[in-house]
Amino acid sequence: MARNRHPEETVNLILGVAFRLFMEKGYEHTSIQDIINNLGGLSKGAIYHHFKSKEDILVAVIDRMTAESNEMLADIRDSSGLSGEEKLKKIFRESISRSVQNDIFTVAPDFRDNPKLLFSLLHDTIDNAAPNYILPIIRQGISDGSIKTDYPEQLAELILLAANAWLNPMIFDSTEEESRRKFMVFRQMLQGFGLDIVDNEMLERVGELASIFQKNKQ
Amino acid sequence: MARNRHPEETVNLILGVAFRLFMEKGYEHTSIQDIINNLGGLSKGAIYHHFKSKEDILVAVIDRMTAESNEMLADIRDSSGLSGEEKLKKIFRESISRSVQNDIFTVAPDFRDNPKLLFSLLHDTIDNAAPNYILPIIRQGISDGSIKTDYPEQLAELILLAANAWLNPMIFDSTEEESRRKFMVFRQMLQGFGLDIVDNEMLERVGELASIFQKNKQ
Repeated sequence: MARNRHPEETVNLILGVAFRLFMEKGYEHTSIQDIINNLGGLSKGAIYHHFKSKEDILVAVIDRMTAESNEMLADIRDSSGLSGEEKLKKIFRESISRSVQNDIFTVAPDFRDNPKLLFSLLHDTIDNAAPNYILPIIRQGISDGSIKTDYPEQLAELILLAANAWLNPMIFDSTEEESRRKFMVFRQMLQGFGLDIVDNEMLERVGELASIFQKNKQ
Repeated sequence: MARNRHPEETVNLILGVAFRLFMEKGYEHTSIQDIINNLGGLSKGAIYHHFKSKEDILVAVIDRMTAESNEMLADIRDSSGLSGEEKLKKIFRESISRSVQNDIFTVAPDFRDNPKLLFSLLHDTIDNAAPNYILPIIRQGISDGSIKTDYPEQLAELILLAANAWLNPMIFDSTEEESRRKFMVFRQMLQGFGLDIVDNEMLERVGELASIFQKNKQ
């Protein structure tokens, strides 16, 4: 394999292989050597040319995962012609319908073996996604009358944590039926803030993702 | 120190020292030798007489912490003359007012260094506290008209996870003011299920605990 000629491709290749191994074996149980063994001839030096350590690779893997999600969030946040409520609804629909979700749920990582991934997910939710993407939409919803709360920062956190952690079967194992019932309580919770954004199509998709996860979990 | 004469006292001593060290240094950074060094003359053999491994000690530490909390939950769950809503209110008030909370918040463990503790807390919440203590109370509340939901199992999970994880400054760092605002959103969330159980006294106490934590965090 040519190296340094297309450094971006090399980085992408490393991150793709690392992501798959972290998901399959767990971060703690994946060594740099495992990653090299799956890179078809790339040397240890070539990896260390791009990344200082395994933790460095993990950070880049997570950055790549969240970059894609953040782009979708920014597009919806900045779109015109939608109320705050409509934007939140669009975010939930797109989040669960993205095809990458099928891949992640098929690999079915157990977050108990990936505490660093879990912390990154939780802290990206609280420190980045909630204040930068959900908060401006909630503020808009308060202005346009579609969202009712005096505490937009905290509501942004609560909604995203419930969605990203509690409703995530990779963190809290749920059957297909339990996932639907959780989503129904999530709907009732949102209604308490004036929001009616869960529809039957979303319920079907949530059940489908839980079912993919259950079939494939290790 | 006499050993084997009072095995329960020895076990309590080990667990007390282990709890303090896990909190101060983190579970991963505490060795069996650290625990021995703080036990004033107890031998390694004496510890291994009671516990197979460090993980075994951790499990016992957590069991001791949750046993006290479970006793309180069971007392309230089984008490008579209170509605479901009143029982939940009593649980929240007692949970935050217990004096052991001051100790825990003074030691201020960072759960990022204690992933095993975090998982134990989250999974005890979902697998034990929610179904065994909160669920029967929510079912009672649905019967007596004080709680409105068709999904009691899932509501029990959502309420306890919000309370034990999101509102816990040791997991999600919050200032005193942020803690109060989170508790106000928690109040609004509960109102969506017919529950009006947060009062000003609780808000004060939540602010106080966050303030103790902020002063002492590492």
